[in-house]
Amino acid sequence: MTKHIRLITTHTTDMSHKMSGLKHLEREGELMLSQVHLDYGPASIECEFDDVLSSPYIAGRAMEAEADGAHAVIIDCMGDPGLHATREVVRIPVLGAGETSMHVAATLGHKFSVITIMDRVRPILENHAKTYGLYEHIASVRAVEVPVLHISNDKEKLYALLADQSHKAVVEDKADVIVLGCTGFFGCDTYIRNFLLEKDIDAPVIDPLPTTIMVAAGLLEVGLTHSLRTYPKPPIKERTGYQIPNISE
Amino acid sequence: MTKHIRLITTHTTDMSHKMSGLKHLEREGELMLSQVHLDYGPASIECEFDDVLSSPYIAGRAMEAEADGAHAVIIDCMGDPGLHATREVVRIPVLGAGETSMHVAATLGHKFSVITIMDRVRPILENHAKTYGLYEHIASVRAVEVPVLHISNDKEKLYALLADQSHKAVVEDKADVIVLGCTGFFGCDTYIRNFLLEKDIDAPVIDPLPTTIMVAAGLLEVGLTHSLRTYPKPPIKERTGYQIPNISE
Amino acid sequence: MTKHIRLITTHTTDMSHKMSGLKHLEREGELMLSQVHLDYGPASIECEFDDVLSSPYIAGRAMEAEADGAHAVIIDCMGDPGLHATREVVRIPVLGAGETSMHVAATLGHKFSVITIMDRVRPILENHAKTYGLYEHIASVRAVEVPVLHISNDKEKLYALLADQSHKAVVEDKADVIVLGCTGFFGCDTYIRNFLLEKDIDAPVIDPLPTTIMVAAGLLEVGLTHSLRTYPKPPIKERTGYQIPNISE
Amino acid sequence: MTKHIRLITTHTTDMSHKMSGLKHLEREGELMLSQVHLDYGPASIECEFDDVLSSPYIAGRAMEAEADGAHAVIIDCMGDPGLHATREVVRIPVLGAGETSMHVAATLGHKFSVITIMDRVRPILENHAKTYGLYEHIASVRAVEVPVLHISNDKEKLYALLADQSHKAVVEDKADVIVLGCTGFFGCDTYIRNFLLEKDIDAPVIDPLPTTIMVAAGLLEVGLTHSLRTYPKPPIKERTGYQIPNISE
Amino acid sequence: MTKHIRLITTHTTDMSHKMSGLKHLEREGELMLSQVHLDYGPASIECEFDDVLSSPYIAGRAMEAEADGAHAVIIDCMGDPGLHATREVVRIPVLGAGETSMHVAATLGHKFSVITIMDRVRPILENHAKTYGLYEHIASVRAVEVPVLHISNDKEKLYALLADQSHKAVVEDKADVIVLGCTGFFGCDTYIRNFLLEKDIDAPVIDPLPTTIMVAAGLLEVGLTHSLRTYPKPPIKERTGYQIPNISE
Amino acid sequence: MTKHIRLITTHTTDMSHKMSGLKHLEREGELMLSQVHLDYGPASIECEFDDVLSSPYIAGRAMEAEADGAHAVIIDCMGDPGLHATREVVRIPVLGAGETSMHVAATLGHKFSVITIMDRVRPILENHAKTYGLYEHIASVRAVEVPVLHISNDKEKLYALLADQSHKAVVEDKADVIVLGCTGFFGCDTYIRNFLLEKDIDAPVIDPLPTTIMVAAGLLEVGLTHSLRTYPKPPIKERTGYQIPNISE
Repeated sequence: MTKHIRLITTHTTDMSHKMSGLKHLEREGELMLSQVHLDYGPASIECEFDDVLSSPYIAGRAMEAEADGAHAVIIDCMGDPGLHATREVVRIPVLGAGETSMHVAATLGHKFSVITIMDRVRPILENHAKTYGLYEHIASVRAVEVPVLHISNDKEKLYALLADQSHKAVVEDKADVIVLGCTGFFGCDTYIRNFLLEKDIDAPVIDPLPTTIMVAAGLLEVGLTHSLRTYPKPPIKERTGYQIPNISE
Repeated sequence: MTKHIRLITTHTTDMSHKMSGLKHLEREGELMLSQVHLDYGPASIECEFDDVLSSPYIAGRAMEAEADGAHAVIIDCMGDPGLHATREVVRIPVLGAGETSMHVAATLGHKFSVITIMDRVRPILENHAKTYGLYEHIASVRAVEVPVLHISNDKEKLYALLADQSHKAVVEDKADVIVLGCTGFFGCDTYIRNFLLEKDIDAPVIDPLPTTIMVAAGLLEVGLTHSLRTYPKPPIKERTGYQIPNISE
Repeated sequence: MTKHIRLITTHTTDMSHKMSGLKHLEREGELMLSQVHLDYGPASIECEFDDVLSSPYIAGRAMEAEADGAHAVIIDCMGDPGLHATREVVRIPVLGAGETSMHVAATLGHKFSVITIMDRVRPILENHAKTYGLYEHIASVRAVEVPVLHISNDKEKLYALLADQSHKAVVEDKADVIVLGCTGFFGCDTYIRNFLLEKDIDAPVIDPLPTTIMVAAGLLEVGLTHSLRTYPKPPIKERTGYQIPNISE
Repeated sequence: MTKHIRLITTHTTDMSHKMSGLKHLEREGELMLSQVHLDYGPASIECEFDDVLSSPYIAGRAMEAEADGAHAVIIDCMGDPGLHATREVVRIPVLGAGETSMHVAATLGHKFSVITIMDRVRPILENHAKTYGLYEHIASVRAVEVPVLHISNDKEKLYALLADQSHKAVVEDKADVIVLGCTGFFGCDTYIRNFLLEKDIDAPVIDPLPTTIMVAAGLLEVGLTHSLRTYPKPPIKERTGYQIPNISE
Repeated sequence: MTKHIRLITTHTTDMSHKMSGLKHLEREGELMLSQVHLDYGPASIECEFDDVLSSPYIAGRAMEAEADGAHAVIIDCMGDPGLHATREVVRIPVLGAGETSMHVAATLGHKFSVITIMDRVRPILENHAKTYGLYEHIASVRAVEVPVLHISNDKEKLYALLADQSHKAVVEDKADVIVLGCTGFFGCDTYIRNFLLEKDIDAPVIDPLPTTIMVAAGLLEVGLTHSLRTYPKPPIKERTGYQIPNISE
Repeated sequence: MTKHIRLITTHTTDMSHKMSGLKHLEREGELMLSQVHLDYGPASIECEFDDVLSSPYIAGRAMEAEADGAHAVIIDCMGDPGLHATREVVRIPVLGAGETSMHVAATLGHKFSVITIMDRVRPILENHAKTYGLYEHIASVRAVEVPVLHISNDKEKLYALLADQSHKAVVEDKADVIVLGCTGFFGCDTYIRNFLLEKDIDAPVIDPLPTTIMVAAGLLEVGLTHSLRTYPKPPIKERTGYQIPNISE
């Protein structure tokens, strides 16, 4: 049976171009990917406010995905917005790009650094790492200080900034593994990895989106999803103000 | 100057009756309280889904409060929904009843137990305690298993359940301090404290709402609010789907 | 009823001039402050030895305060000398300036730095933070290397040193909040805050003494004091060598 | 290209029958599995002594696997014997069944319990969890007290014991997720999961071996392997006493 | 040269009879023991108040010991009263029976339980363990609820209570090592160990006083004492209220 | 009775010259030392691979030592190879130079730095510190980048490198105590300590081997060995591939 994994881009900006870069992960009769963005919410995720504005609509997209027959859902953002809430409203696996790639990073080396968009999201990522159990595995959280919506403006400059911060993470902060700290950096891993290799640094660079997709595919293969004990279905009650389905019997 | 503290009840159910129980904290010319609930969102907060549905509208209420001239805002829920996001959108202090009362509890005894509504919120509270730094101070999180909207149905029964779980927290889990784990338990502290005293147990019982109000009043007196370094103003961008103001210049 | 909070300065040097700077916190018919220093003990607190020499007499002053009808006691030192022992000998709330202001700091931002007198007290503060649960919230403990009794000699120089270390704490250590690390720095918060603001850094600067007073006032309002389970009355037995009352029936 | 994953059973007892239970994970032209056990070492792994006796030969089998063209190696034991050493001697990914399944467990629920063979391995698993960062996610480590080599003697009894301990882990220790604590329990997950479901407990039960295989397959797809910074090639020197290749240029 | 270790009993009750039980540790020409108790302070140590009343006089006794030519000082109490302060006033090693025996316990097994006098000292011991780094190694702190000064009244009963709590610590709390939680329990280790052995439990029972003496003797042999960086000499200033020497040039 | 402590050098290179430097610790009729190295295994320990190759033969040497009547065994390597496994196969105390000296370091100052051979062992030492409970006590792990077998080539240069890194550990990383991070650095402590003293830094420098010997001698005096609950005898079964005795009845 073909496993269908739905990526939920966590904002209202069209990111369907990402799909072409993920095509090679699909397998006829086995793994199929689809992607949606939000109808409502922020144009990008750069702060806690964006996080809360996107979360309800992410949960809504996940309900849709489950209704559509998708087998798993991936929250396409390193900040894992709405991760726990989304798990409550569907029984198919819900993976956060942040949670998943940080756990993978912890298995690939002693300490990892996250190279993200802006320093302002550092507390968010560090707080998540505390609840995930991975805080002691963080060498540093570094930022290139490029707003999400400018990422595609000057790819060359972005590459240079990411490579520079990654290099500093290894040399100054003793990082053993680099994690791209924004799913918008999708595809930048090769450049950084080569940049580091030229400097004789052989450290894995994790591209969160494809990594999370492949872990999701693995979980589907072995029939695992999140625990109903941690994420029981929300109680039935009135909930207003959203263009998403409410919980029903 | 009169300090005006605005309570934001985090759901759509009218809780204005709470205000009568808080009247005695007001001081003519010094401390004034007001309270609002949400126009949109869940009818109560009992899970992560309710948390994310309430958060955007809590942030909206806080912006309103600041525009109205309120001097501080209290998020009237032990789950601290939208706490960090709300701090980003206003510069007046934003206190979470959960965060504040857990910190106070940690200063009143060695370990505290939180007696909450349903066991399903235990992971939420424990995860918060991990980021607040207070996880090792938790003796236990216990639940009476009464849905929020039934709290007022049978006060006698609720009292008995809360007292019983509090007693078990002290005797079985070695709690030194009891924290009411739902702001809907407002006013139940005296009954529990007396119940414990009759059993020769002299342990403080923290009623989160008045405790948080008074800490907020204290912070106002000394002119403290949250750091703009942790909670910078959200970037200006398109944000849709909510009846709340967007961030502007 | 007027709440009466007694400050216990933890050494034998007269600090009554502090009271003028705290006057504005008093409220006719509501909040009254008084202050004492020690008859015996060290002339200032700068090390663990000073801490233990002051602690018995602090406990004694607290017993006096309770006998005098004070409603709460504040230990006027960031090192919280005798904090736990003092709680055992009185039932009125006992707040440590260190414990209280570190907890407040943890609610105002992601990480805080403590700017203290001499580097030699760093281990004391870090050990306290470990038991309080706040060690992971510390960005750094920095020192101006000015002995306590020289603090008032050259206020200009002290201001400059504090501002410089606070700035370094933000820029180099990523502090989000500054905590004055000595209650002798009382009143320096405004200068530092303005210094940082001029450098476009909007970070709260916590002045421990007024902050602790206002939290104490808040606890009094809601009737909370420390748990008798953590701090039971000391057993009755012979205790000699001190001009303080022993425990009696 | 077909990905070839080599399972290294960590002892000298033939476990090739396991392969039939894993066949369904293979995909023509995509994923191929092979399995070896050790020529030398212990007959099973039940203690730290067994762990150290198996580790050198596991590293040797991994070097063989890499030479054979395998793309990844899985250490088929929850105790992760030789995991770090093995990573030093090959550049293909080396996954430990213990490390991988504990990280997966941490993403599926709040707390997990490991149900293992004998209580004597509890310290080993807890120490590993401390270095992996997952100690706070452990609800409990429970044991059925069945030696590894007796596992296949009485499957019915083993099932009953595992189900009973899993049930206790959920009810008494508040586990949200169950992890089979021995790769010899391979295939027991369905029985336990159904047993729990009949008691109205919907908690994932992780079978470490297939789960680790599928995560390994995912890592291969995205080209990730462990960091050479954490696991550099061992220096060249004399090493004797083993029928395994030494490190060479 | 004969090493001379001075035990400082931390209260005013004569404990010189202990010395006969320690005689066998002395070695002609190598190791000599002496013991003092306090002239002033509490009659025993059972709470934080006793701790602070004893600490100044313990520091005084240590200064005396150093002046007398003693080579090391042992604070004869599991609560380690005045440990850090005492290290500041002398350069000979100062060992706390609590700190030393908890570190030894951590090297002898996975988790240890401390069996102490009264439950009221549990927070003290747990807080110490947090700063020592050993909190995760604690299985439990259990109490026999016998006041220190009654310890010698009924040895049989004490033995029975200690053995019972030790047994529970192993069976219920999974302790691997037992630490006597009061130096007044001196000599009880053999009885408990035999009691456990009869129940087929082979767990070390640490008697803190002789254990600490022998670690101190070891440190003397290799010339180690505490760091002057952590414990610099207290600054010279006026200190009053004590019959102990002040710090001088 | 003479206590006989056997040092097990953890590799195949003759280190018998070390014994002359330890002679002064022996006491006629009291303490006797002997030393062996391995017949098989690596020529030195510099990585995880060396660790696992040495561990089985270390356990073998310990069984021999116990059969020879030795009273304790010391694993002569900071990486503590085979420590837990060795404890399972003998009932005489087994001390690791790494574990013991890190615990001692934690009692001598606030934070310690380990100055080791190569940066590649940093993860090993940090992981050990996590399970020992001492991770928060580590100021830094620094390396001189000298391979173990070159240590004796140029003593002057080694001294200079160790002193330089120790100085940086104190000044840059705020270390209070220095721990030599390789037992091959045996005897270098005095030079480093004097170097630091000349720079007015009075910090203890721990030479792990003599320190561990003396702690072992102390444990023998008080009759302590590791817990059979944590380290039960390995089950009887076939174990092949080693020239060491198997476990028997």
